[in-house]
Amino acid sequence: MSASGRVGMVGAGQLARMTQRAAIDLGVHLTVLATRSDEPAVTAGAMHRLGAADDPAALRELASAVDVVTLDHELVDTATLVAIEAQGVPVRPSPRALRVAQDKLVARETFAALGLPGPAHVIATDDEGVDQLAAAHGWPLVAKARTGGYDGRGVEVVADRDALDAVLARGGEWIVEQRVAIAVEIAVLVARRPDGESVVYPVVETLQRDGICHELIMPARIDADIAERAIAIAREVADGIDAVGILAVEQFVTPDGDVLVNEIAVRPHNSGHATIEGCATSQFTNHLRAVLDWPLGPTTMLAGCAVTVNVLGVDGSDVAARVPDALAVEGARVHLYGKASRPGRKIGHVTVLGQDAETALVAARRAAAALTGTNGNGRTA
Amino acid sequence: MSASGRVGMVGAGQLARMTQRAAIDLGVHLTVLATRSDEPAVTAGAMHRLGAADDPAALRELASAVDVVTLDHELVDTATLVAIEAQGVPVRPSPRALRVAQDKLVARETFAALGLPGPAHVIATDDEGVDQLAAAHGWPLVAKARTGGYDGRGVEVVADRDALDAVLARGGEWIVEQRVAIAVEIAVLVARRPDGESVVYPVVETLQRDGICHELIMPARIDADIAERAIAIAREVADGIDAVGILAVEQFVTPDGDVLVNEIAVRPHNSGHATIEGCATSQFTNHLRAVLDWPLGPTTMLAGCAVTVNVLGVDGSDVAARVPDALAVEGARVHLYGKASRPGRKIGHVTVLGQDAETALVAARRAAAALTGTNGNGRTA
Repeated sequence: MSASGRVGMVGAGQLARMTQRAAIDLGVHLTVLATRSDEPAVTAGAMHRLGAADDPAALRELASAVDVVTLDHELVDTATLVAIEAQGVPVRPSPRALRVAQDKLVARETFAALGLPGPAHVIATDDEGVDQLAAAHGWPLVAKARTGGYDGRGVEVVADRDALDAVLARGGEWIVEQRVAIAVEIAVLVARRPDGESVVYPVVETLQRDGICHELIMPARIDADIAERAIAIAREVADGIDAVGILAVEQFVTPDGDVLVNEIAVRPHNSGHATIEGCATSQFTNHLRAVLDWPLGPTTMLAGCAVTVNVLGVDGSDVAARVPDALAVEGARVHLYGKASRPGRKIGHVTVLGQDAETALVAARRAAAALTGTNGNGRTA
Repeated sequence: MSASGRVGMVGAGQLARMTQRAAIDLGVHLTVLATRSDEPAVTAGAMHRLGAADDPAALRELASAVDVVTLDHELVDTATLVAIEAQGVPVRPSPRALRVAQDKLVARETFAALGLPGPAHVIATDDEGVDQLAAAHGWPLVAKARTGGYDGRGVEVVADRDALDAVLARGGEWIVEQRVAIAVEIAVLVARRPDGESVVYPVVETLQRDGICHELIMPARIDADIAERAIAIAREVADGIDAVGILAVEQFVTPDGDVLVNEIAVRPHNSGHATIEGCATSQFTNHLRAVLDWPLGPTTMLAGCAVTVNVLGVDGSDVAARVPDALAVEGARVHLYGKASRPGRKIGHVTVLGQDAETALVAARRAAAALTGTNGNGRTA
């Protein structure tokens, strides 16, 4: 058990920033690997080293100063992480679990091997497989880049064979999946220790806009039996890949009530922001506790519901100047990441606790809109 | 209204550390004036300047870099704060309000002028006054140093005239008060903006040990009408001294149900730790919002009760190594201040939310004891 509490985190974005907030409470010494000294976790006061996540020397230097290495994003060189582990510094999540999060083909094969329900898929270069997939499920299909996609990038709905060929012509490796009818998108967060002890957060409903997770509702507005299945799937993934730290399992609920596993993240996740105020222990606190192999905290909700609205940048204007307007919305919990407001960039979020999701959403949207000077529909007021 | 959010805080102790945690959320840039670079707020990542709180140059330099100056303790040179204000940087709390917190004679006179109930008092050098006080209330009386006392230091119960003379022979200025029968000690926290808008936290019951606030129970186990009077007194003090930021008003409840004002603090306060997890907005967040003249957040409780047990150092042993033991107590929210564990030193606290205070206290005491390796009675287990 790591007791001295020195955690190295690769990446210094908003997830690392919110981890720093949790580290202060626990007296944990968080050191982040940042590419610039103005990144969110650095301006929040985490100790930092400058270096790239794909630079073996930078990763080794970070590892040399801490008890355990963890991640704020998945664009990390796994070979170096393996080498760090071999030298005796635990990497949590393990490089093996990280591969599942990094590579959509590895993910699909892993989930299938665990017997978990997911969309039918083939490798894009397998012409016969694509034909069979189209025959079984019909066009359109969905092409997904094996690696490097995020926030909707690297995902293309393709209407026919020509459209697919046009996507493949861009280069890179792709998989092709059946297009699933989605009633609700959800995410389940699990915090898991090296010995397998774990806690699960209430299922979160994720509302996307332009492929970016825009709003979160906890607990998701789904039937109890669907929630149970989603939680069971998340636990099976966690145990199956031996996840340590926070694991986020994104899932689709179909109109028929089927639950399909989509993709995973092996670190604190965008879908868990509402756990900061909404749950007895935030995902960031439990991530630190899990990677340090410390006892985990309860995930009980502290209110009937917790909703989060992400704040996306609009222009270069001063978001900080609008904070008072957002705080004027009763119960709005404003989180800013210390990032300049560029169009489409995640620069903060607002969480509101309440008794019903609809009322809380209205308040959270109003506060989020105040931060960007828009009317909540993305237009400048 | 200050919108850019640069706050300077004189002092870098645990209150500044917990303010840094709140600053991260709001994107506020907190700069603390620290005497050493290993102080709690500095190791938590707040920006800092090194300098003494009684050094005019250090205070002026801090003020030059921020939009508003506030405090984490009251041992600050008021004359310099007046000069800073005159140069256009707001000081919140005002030097005038600070004087009330610094000087027990000024406090007693201020409360009396506001018509608030408090212990009868005289200046210790007023022999005739002391005689009258003794005649009216009987010995023992209580001698209190006008300035510089804290955590029970500077407060002496004196059995007779000789005992009082012995205290006065030490030097310094003292006041003498009637000894009040105390049924319950309580504190009321008010967050107040420059225009007088304010919010009040639920009354906190403070349990002292050896003159140091040891345990907190929110809400206090007192009758509703007593709580109402205590809150009314706190509001009158806040308006009466034009407090800005957090004001803590410590009060005594007598066995007869009278509520007497004791002393105040004009900054985030030890009695408000349970607001971090227990209330919709923590005292630290509302302190920043108040001094920046931003809308205040609700103080609603998120659970039936919230209790806090302070963790006092025992020896030089490694508290960090014991964190896992404390976290093994279900629901324990551990806060460490990054301070070495020296005997009697406040090095952290544990908060537990629950439905009833007794159950929560048992858990919080167990976790606090785990941190010091004691059995909860101060003995090493």
